[in-house]
Amino acid sequence: MTKRDPIQTTDDEARALARSLLSDATFAALGVLTPDTGLPMVTRVALATTRDGHPVTLISDLSAHAQALKATPVASLLVGEPGERGDPLTHPRLTLQCRARFTRNGEPGHTELAAHYLSLRPKAKLYAGFQDFFFATFEIESGHLNGGFARAYKLTPADILG
Amino acid sequence: MTKRDPIQTTDDEARALARSLLSDATFAALGVLTPDTGLPMVTRVALATTRDGHPVTLISDLSAHAQALKATPVASLLVGEPGERGDPLTHPRLTLQCRARFTRNGEPGHTELAAHYLSLRPKAKLYAGFQDFFFATFEIESGHLNGGFARAYKLTPADILG
Repeated sequence: MTKRDPIQTTDDEARALARSLLSDATFAALGVLTPDTGLPMVTRVALATTRDGHPVTLISDLSAHAQALKATPVASLLVGEPGERGDPLTHPRLTLQCRARFTRNGEPGHTELAAHYLSLRPKAKLYAGFQDFFFATFEIESGHLNGGFARAYKLTPADILG
Repeated sequence: MTKRDPIQTTDDEARALARSLLSDATFAALGVLTPDTGLPMVTRVALATTRDGHPVTLISDLSAHAQALKATPVASLLVGEPGERGDPLTHPRLTLQCRARFTRNGEPGHTELAAHYLSLRPKAKLYAGFQDFFFATFEIESGHLNGGFARAYKLTPADILG
């Protein structure tokens, strides 16, 4: 067994990379816990960030991930897409572990959050008015940055949110 | 509340789309359960398929996902990347729920699996010889195909494996 500690000391370069991966993400892989079985389930969601820098999405009650989040409001997000020509394993990516909080139409803060989200993701206007769509904000609890082979960092919320 | 059943009846077109999404995938978002906390964690892994059509990856004992899989050998995989110009929410993608099985260097079947994997993913030769790398095969238990807005299908292993 090779003995190597793959975790590097977090520096400003790692923090800046994590922040740009998150702020540039228009979608993410969302990991949730399947109701009843507790098994992991990964789906794709649109993504933006709140004014505080936390990830946020707009999802439908009809989706499997919405039902899972409502049953157990914990989530992981993976952002940082390799694109078509990049090497997926050397391209940097960021894993977040989060607690989900929901904001529905008519609830406090919905109007402001919707205006902010739609300013970043104008195509979501198609769905935002549907009564079964709501915002899920993912409050970051921890992060793991993989900057490519043997470049891994553990991050705190402050590392990512500034 | 709008009443719509988003699940369509599975047909051959859906089966063919799911199979091509999986066989074309060179990487995936992998969802596992974090040891101790049980919280979901999503990371990126390289991906190929076994001769039987199940997803397989080559991972290091040092990685967080390997440690999670060894503690609880269940996983979800998301494949079907939108590329740089596609709309991530209309681009088709496939969510799998799987049980993980491990094949280490020196174990039965390792030589054949390694030869098959390296024929599909020749760059993995860089890592395949390291003693801390092993194969994780993901035996498909269920699938969920999202072919774009309002085109969702529940799939069995037979739908995907043929």
